[in-house]
Amino acid sequence: MSAHFPRLPMISSDDSDVFHEECGVFGISGSDDAAAHTALGLHALQHRGQEASGIAVFDGKDFHVHRALGHVGDNFSSPEVIDKLRGHIAIGHNRYATSGATTLRNVQPFIAELADNTIALAHNGNLTNAITLKDALVRRGAIFQSSSDTEVIMHLVAHSPHKDLVQKLADALNQVEGAYSLVAICNDTLIGVRDPSGVRPLVLGRLDEAYILASESCALDIIGAEFIRDVEPGEMVAIRNGTLHSDRPFAPRPRRFCVFEYIYFARPDSFVEGRSVYQVRKAIGAELSQESPADADIVIPIPDSGTPAAIGYAEKAGLPFELGIIRNHYVGRTFIEPTEQIRHLGVRLKHNANRAYIAGKRVILVDDSIVRGTTSMKIVQMMRDAGAREVHMRIASPPTTHSCFYGVDTPERSKLMAAQHDVDEMCRLIGADSLAFISIEGLYRAVGDARRTPENPQYCDACFTGNYPIPLTDHDEGLISA
Amino acid sequence: MSAHFPRLPMISSDDSDVFHEECGVFGISGSDDAAAHTALGLHALQHRGQEASGIAVFDGKDFHVHRALGHVGDNFSSPEVIDKLRGHIAIGHNRYATSGATTLRNVQPFIAELADNTIALAHNGNLTNAITLKDALVRRGAIFQSSSDTEVIMHLVAHSPHKDLVQKLADALNQVEGAYSLVAICNDTLIGVRDPSGVRPLVLGRLDEAYILASESCALDIIGAEFIRDVEPGEMVAIRNGTLHSDRPFAPRPRRFCVFEYIYFARPDSFVEGRSVYQVRKAIGAELSQESPADADIVIPIPDSGTPAAIGYAEKAGLPFELGIIRNHYVGRTFIEPTEQIRHLGVRLKHNANRAYIAGKRVILVDDSIVRGTTSMKIVQMMRDAGAREVHMRIASPPTTHSCFYGVDTPERSKLMAAQHDVDEMCRLIGADSLAFISIEGLYRAVGDARRTPENPQYCDACFTGNYPIPLTDHDEGLISA
Amino acid sequence: MSAHFPRLPMISSDDSDVFHEECGVFGISGSDDAAAHTALGLHALQHRGQEASGIAVFDGKDFHVHRALGHVGDNFSSPEVIDKLRGHIAIGHNRYATSGATTLRNVQPFIAELADNTIALAHNGNLTNAITLKDALVRRGAIFQSSSDTEVIMHLVAHSPHKDLVQKLADALNQVEGAYSLVAICNDTLIGVRDPSGVRPLVLGRLDEAYILASESCALDIIGAEFIRDVEPGEMVAIRNGTLHSDRPFAPRPRRFCVFEYIYFARPDSFVEGRSVYQVRKAIGAELSQESPADADIVIPIPDSGTPAAIGYAEKAGLPFELGIIRNHYVGRTFIEPTEQIRHLGVRLKHNANRAYIAGKRVILVDDSIVRGTTSMKIVQMMRDAGAREVHMRIASPPTTHSCFYGVDTPERSKLMAAQHDVDEMCRLIGADSLAFISIEGLYRAVGDARRTPENPQYCDACFTGNYPIPLTDHDEGLISA
Amino acid sequence: MSAHFPRLPMISSDDSDVFHEECGVFGISGSDDAAAHTALGLHALQHRGQEASGIAVFDGKDFHVHRALGHVGDNFSSPEVIDKLRGHIAIGHNRYATSGATTLRNVQPFIAELADNTIALAHNGNLTNAITLKDALVRRGAIFQSSSDTEVIMHLVAHSPHKDLVQKLADALNQVEGAYSLVAICNDTLIGVRDPSGVRPLVLGRLDEAYILASESCALDIIGAEFIRDVEPGEMVAIRNGTLHSDRPFAPRPRRFCVFEYIYFARPDSFVEGRSVYQVRKAIGAELSQESPADADIVIPIPDSGTPAAIGYAEKAGLPFELGIIRNHYVGRTFIEPTEQIRHLGVRLKHNANRAYIAGKRVILVDDSIVRGTTSMKIVQMMRDAGAREVHMRIASPPTTHSCFYGVDTPERSKLMAAQHDVDEMCRLIGADSLAFISIEGLYRAVGDARRTPENPQYCDACFTGNYPIPLTDHDEGLISA
Repeated sequence: MSAHFPRLPMISSDDSDVFHEECGVFGISGSDDAAAHTALGLHALQHRGQEASGIAVFDGKDFHVHRALGHVGDNFSSPEVIDKLRGHIAIGHNRYATSGATTLRNVQPFIAELADNTIALAHNGNLTNAITLKDALVRRGAIFQSSSDTEVIMHLVAHSPHKDLVQKLADALNQVEGAYSLVAICNDTLIGVRDPSGVRPLVLGRLDEAYILASESCALDIIGAEFIRDVEPGEMVAIRNGTLHSDRPFAPRPRRFCVFEYIYFARPDSFVEGRSVYQVRKAIGAELSQESPADADIVIPIPDSGTPAAIGYAEKAGLPFELGIIRNHYVGRTFIEPTEQIRHLGVRLKHNANRAYIAGKRVILVDDSIVRGTTSMKIVQMMRDAGAREVHMRIASPPTTHSCFYGVDTPERSKLMAAQHDVDEMCRLIGADSLAFISIEGLYRAVGDARRTPENPQYCDACFTGNYPIPLTDHDEGLISA
Repeated sequence: MSAHFPRLPMISSDDSDVFHEECGVFGISGSDDAAAHTALGLHALQHRGQEASGIAVFDGKDFHVHRALGHVGDNFSSPEVIDKLRGHIAIGHNRYATSGATTLRNVQPFIAELADNTIALAHNGNLTNAITLKDALVRRGAIFQSSSDTEVIMHLVAHSPHKDLVQKLADALNQVEGAYSLVAICNDTLIGVRDPSGVRPLVLGRLDEAYILASESCALDIIGAEFIRDVEPGEMVAIRNGTLHSDRPFAPRPRRFCVFEYIYFARPDSFVEGRSVYQVRKAIGAELSQESPADADIVIPIPDSGTPAAIGYAEKAGLPFELGIIRNHYVGRTFIEPTEQIRHLGVRLKHNANRAYIAGKRVILVDDSIVRGTTSMKIVQMMRDAGAREVHMRIASPPTTHSCFYGVDTPERSKLMAAQHDVDEMCRLIGADSLAFISIEGLYRAVGDARRTPENPQYCDACFTGNYPIPLTDHDEGLISA
Repeated sequence: MSAHFPRLPMISSDDSDVFHEECGVFGISGSDDAAAHTALGLHALQHRGQEASGIAVFDGKDFHVHRALGHVGDNFSSPEVIDKLRGHIAIGHNRYATSGATTLRNVQPFIAELADNTIALAHNGNLTNAITLKDALVRRGAIFQSSSDTEVIMHLVAHSPHKDLVQKLADALNQVEGAYSLVAICNDTLIGVRDPSGVRPLVLGRLDEAYILASESCALDIIGAEFIRDVEPGEMVAIRNGTLHSDRPFAPRPRRFCVFEYIYFARPDSFVEGRSVYQVRKAIGAELSQESPADADIVIPIPDSGTPAAIGYAEKAGLPFELGIIRNHYVGRTFIEPTEQIRHLGVRLKHNANRAYIAGKRVILVDDSIVRGTTSMKIVQMMRDAGAREVHMRIASPPTTHSCFYGVDTPERSKLMAAQHDVDEMCRLIGADSLAFISIEGLYRAVGDARRTPENPQYCDACFTGNYPIPLTDHDEGLISA
Repeated sequence: MSAHFPRLPMISSDDSDVFHEECGVFGISGSDDAAAHTALGLHALQHRGQEASGIAVFDGKDFHVHRALGHVGDNFSSPEVIDKLRGHIAIGHNRYATSGATTLRNVQPFIAELADNTIALAHNGNLTNAITLKDALVRRGAIFQSSSDTEVIMHLVAHSPHKDLVQKLADALNQVEGAYSLVAICNDTLIGVRDPSGVRPLVLGRLDEAYILASESCALDIIGAEFIRDVEPGEMVAIRNGTLHSDRPFAPRPRRFCVFEYIYFARPDSFVEGRSVYQVRKAIGAELSQESPADADIVIPIPDSGTPAAIGYAEKAGLPFELGIIRNHYVGRTFIEPTEQIRHLGVRLKHNANRAYIAGKRVILVDDSIVRGTTSMKIVQMMRDAGAREVHMRIASPPTTHSCFYGVDTPERSKLMAAQHDVDEMCRLIGADSLAFISIEGLYRAVGDARRTPENPQYCDACFTGNYPIPLTDHDEGLISA
């Protein structure tokens, strides 16, 4: 275990050309196989974080925890590991971590022994006043072992004057700002909380006697559990001895679910905030087809995230849908590119043109979003190399012009192509014959709202509009920059 | 390294419910980055074998070889490994290995120092008289270090009375029966050979001054090489100092390319034997739609191998194509199922129903083939659990009733569902409302032949018909059973 | 990383038949190679703890730390590791850990970022009021991440009202009871402290411009540093910018150096508290020879710890000294005994009789101590099997009748042979012809004191006498048992 | 697994300053715990080879083999490994390997399936016509997988015209020249052979019904087996169904046991060729004391190999024997020296002066041999740094002036200090006040022979005299150089 202790906090980002969700959570209470169910739930949520996972369980007397770098299936599927994690209440966490900071010290769930209680906690999201809170806590004598927001919550819990552990947690959460969906074990109680704006998803399910909390409904499906409802923004559910209590410990705030969950993060087979992700994506494709048609022969998805929108686009446009790009699923994070020449190959490690369907054709490419633009450039070039006559790029989201501070790892604004260039310039830079994004209004129509209310939008769409619904305390005080 | 030396040869099969191709090969001559190019080519061919890989290079003076269990990207992408594999001629190999026998001793390429020569060799395929030949060689004093067919070829080369190493190899290959596409380095010459029936694929490409051999054209695409042509059945190409010589060292035999390469093995973006794999699969789907229509609402592929046929089926039938099943790509071989309860979950680790599109619908499921039938049963049930009103299964190959002895790992016949049951029984067993396979004639139409000539079929279709084009010497002598 | 969080503290002990020192420490200030010097110092102190090691360095701006399970040489000798640990001030720690608790969370040095300061800390010893202090701290909101005493000190520092970090540390240490020799980095100051009784050793040395602190002088020798003096009991030295300040922050207490350091723990080539360890051991052997002679042919050490005393015994007795037992140095902790039969072989994995010198002889065996007695039994039997005529056992320490609470891992009293049996019974149980221990008076003579003053002994000899010089707060309050 | 195939054979040596024995062997027949016994025997023989080990067993039907790099205890002590190695006949091997060539391909035992037989084989020693034989075998079509001599024997066996496997082995061994002690399993027969000159040791023992073969008697002791006798030079013993047959398949040659086994290689508690190794070493020390006394205060061994001779020297000289140098047993091969400064520390990683006993003293240092002289230089300097007044070096062997070709890894002659310098120069170079080696005559007296017969010495003493008893065919033909 190696660690580096810089004197100042940092927000780091890697060089990849996609957005990264920072985590998935799962919790279960009342199951004899709590750890095994949690491992499966985390496996279904693997797309929300691939660097590390952890599971904590409570057996009525002791807590047990196992955390490991790598995929869930590689670390949590052996009987040896699962057998040690005995207990009927469990929480689990998948972590996406930016480069450098991936040490086991930062892997959730966190666990703390307080005076008469033990709490285990994991969350998806990001606190926007974490540094400010941490500074105050350190001045009171708190010792931090990690750079994780989660530990800030833990110390707030430990310092809370309340008696009851669940009240301590509510007290702590009333001091934090930011976006979070959180699961916790407070002694023998399973807790689930969504922040007052409800930016990140959290659903409630049931399997026989057991209650389940999960970031997405696909984690219920994998264990055959029934979907009950979303946990509401600002709601705290507490499950103990088979009974669920719901509480609202926060001042109410307008609902602001992250619209990008529909566009990219969530799995297409999930329902979040009451809608089928796949249906929303197809609807976006259909809207896009109406807003920005193109005179072309075929519609091609950029796999895999562009596929549902491409099906919607093709269906609405009456054009053939074809797998014009084949993805190599064996590319993990492990293909280091050993020589300069290979680095130039770039995107072909992951994608290849399906030449038979491209030569001589006018193609429409459908992708979910453009981040830095590097992938788009390479794929347009790949289409031309394969003989495409025209290449029209259609994007199933508005231009991403702003960074996210609510739990998504985004590049600095200076690296966001749409923050630096208008659509015409972008089209020229990526080398397409035409480029179009869905409008913000079209997006709202696709998610089922007749129109966006600009003074108080129904979703968090800050990455497209700069309208940040939750204060950016650390950022405003110059503690971090983006 | 542990090894078990049973006294009798065995053919083992694992319990999975798909066919396994047993290998991909790659070779290059005339490149300063021969090892790096080979690593990339093997990466593009990863679908043909995931258990182990190896690369051998010749630098004009010495041979270097590296072999490792696991994926290409995990083992052959670091500068340390590639730098040690210096040289301008390289061959590489991906191996699929049946359970138990995966030791490094069996990983190709094999390399042997003969009296005045060194040869390195790798092949895709299976010899049908390997045990008979091995017995004879052992009686002459040969010591075998592996259970691989490749080593049989090596010993035949070593014992050949010819002077020239390439002639020794031709001499050796004239003694073997079976299906193989082979790459070799004979001193400073790169060799490529397809067996006289041409069962397994091998293509020839070019990148600047370098010649390339590869199992499929997708391995040319990844390094930006140009496709020249297929190596012909029974052809031996020898590349030395930038010049290619073609020879025909075998008595001519009818061409019998494996039709299953089109159905399942090859990547959809490859061209093999002159045809686009994706186009053939779509054509099969369209034929199937004509032969076996169904009154339904949507067409759903079983991902990923059923997708092109499903697109062809939907297009021809005029029905909507939908991603009704979502695949979890994080499932590797590593998700051990720790408890009985989790083993029962089975297929959900890999697949989940996209409920929003299935509830209340009459669905057509399209898959490439049925092996044991276990996956089909689970997926039909998954559709019903998600609310499908009717489930019609359509299969893009004829019933697989016979084992393969030419390089594909098939279960024993007793485990092949279609060898034990007729289509009506199969339909009942998998629980579908209807089940249909494409006819053998429909399959031949889809690959472009007006009709199959039964006395001498244009393809090897033994797994569907029992018509084995190459003698099964070991099998007929009772040395192995299937 | 797996962890188990029992609700109650535990003191665990393994089954081995020796005492285990719980740690060695090293610190250096003013060296450009601070981490490399520390790695070497820890290597020289490896005998004081083999399970894990850690090094923390400060480069004037940032702290860097690396901790690893295993030997120093295996983890801290590569340029990659050392290069990352850049800085001119370093501290290091070797840990012996009882079974089960060896996780990286417990490996020292610990590091904490306080409000305006950072402190890194490592110590050798054991606090006797750690649980009491921890309970109070947790009630004030402190979150503990480990079960280590070190973290208790860290939290006391963090909660200290003093401004200056060194004063905070002095304040913290004034609240703890127990035995400790401690090294710390407080911002840019290297600190060394011995507890007021001076139970554990700590020496001061110099190499060019650099000051060095180490558990034993052998860690100075390995880097060619000069021994200056022992740090005094109750002394705190602070080294900053090449200047050493000495302070006495504690109320004075009588000096009570652990006499067992001379008998067993320290390396024979070390000087601790002003005496050569080897010379003391030889002197003990000579005293023992005077007190308990035996009519015998040869003197045999039980290697390696009994060797110096055996040389002293043989020299004084005028008997030949022979290597009658050969030790296999390849036995690490790793030789798991796979079968019942092999477990019965027991001690022969480590020791073998040198038959040529034993057959027909009357032998005197010299060992440093008897803990559980199991080793003694096996070695006496081994001597008899090799043909010894008589076997006389002589022990270079008094009977160990009491547990240690000051940093040595001892079995519970019920497992200490001398706590359960008198010398005659012990002789019968181990099967010797005679058995004698050095007297407590003889031991004091050997270490250079004319006589032990029972009301206030010059050394801590609690394991022989039960005279515990430092309060056992946790123990007296029933928080731990032994 | 990485391999490099140079076109020419090489003999490589590392940079260390000791001779390396190249292997220990063990065999057992008639034990239900054959593999466990073999693992223990190899553990006792670990000093003869530390880089890799292997065990092969036969269970009456199948062979099982496990080979691993590293120590026996690390690889062969888990129940999982031992349970797989079921069978009643086993052989095992410890390997010392020169740098670079340590791959699993070269680790013994080797196993080969011949026409109707299977043979497993391991040996200690070196063939002096291996390259010549290998060249001839390759011309006959043999394919070699390793650079090991053992494989040459295997191919000779495979090509032997004899019917019976044991006769094939005798036939093969009649073609090889060199020094070897060999164990083999030929179907259900355990074989042990020493070369006609008997250069390397091999002893025979018994444990209940089981017969045992081992390089040294210490491997009998560890499992409680009884020593029966040495296998004789040129003898082949064959054990089957509890019966031992002895055969003499070779033309008789004069006995030439390696005298260096007594000086350094064998463990002091072993009996080889009828003598106690410890006793011989003490006798050498006593002779040396007579031949080369010195006016000094104490005798200090260079640990651990110089210790018995130092005891013998001190006893005969009437001087005190003291542990003036303390060895750090935690130094494995793993302490990489990360910086230039640390490399200069050199020998102190392993040894430290025991200052208390050296300051102001005239010391006699006793070591077993001088190879390159680098260790001697550093240790003399260490004595002077510790304050020694005079340093007299005494060496328990004659000057080593020639390389060994019979199984010991020696540096080239140009690196042997005694091959380049006379004793006076050596004394000056190592910085001692005097230096003396035992005479060759003194050495013979110490091993019990009144005098050496120069025309036909009783031992192989080629490293001291250049009198090579076995032809150096490969060397004479220029195939290798030394």
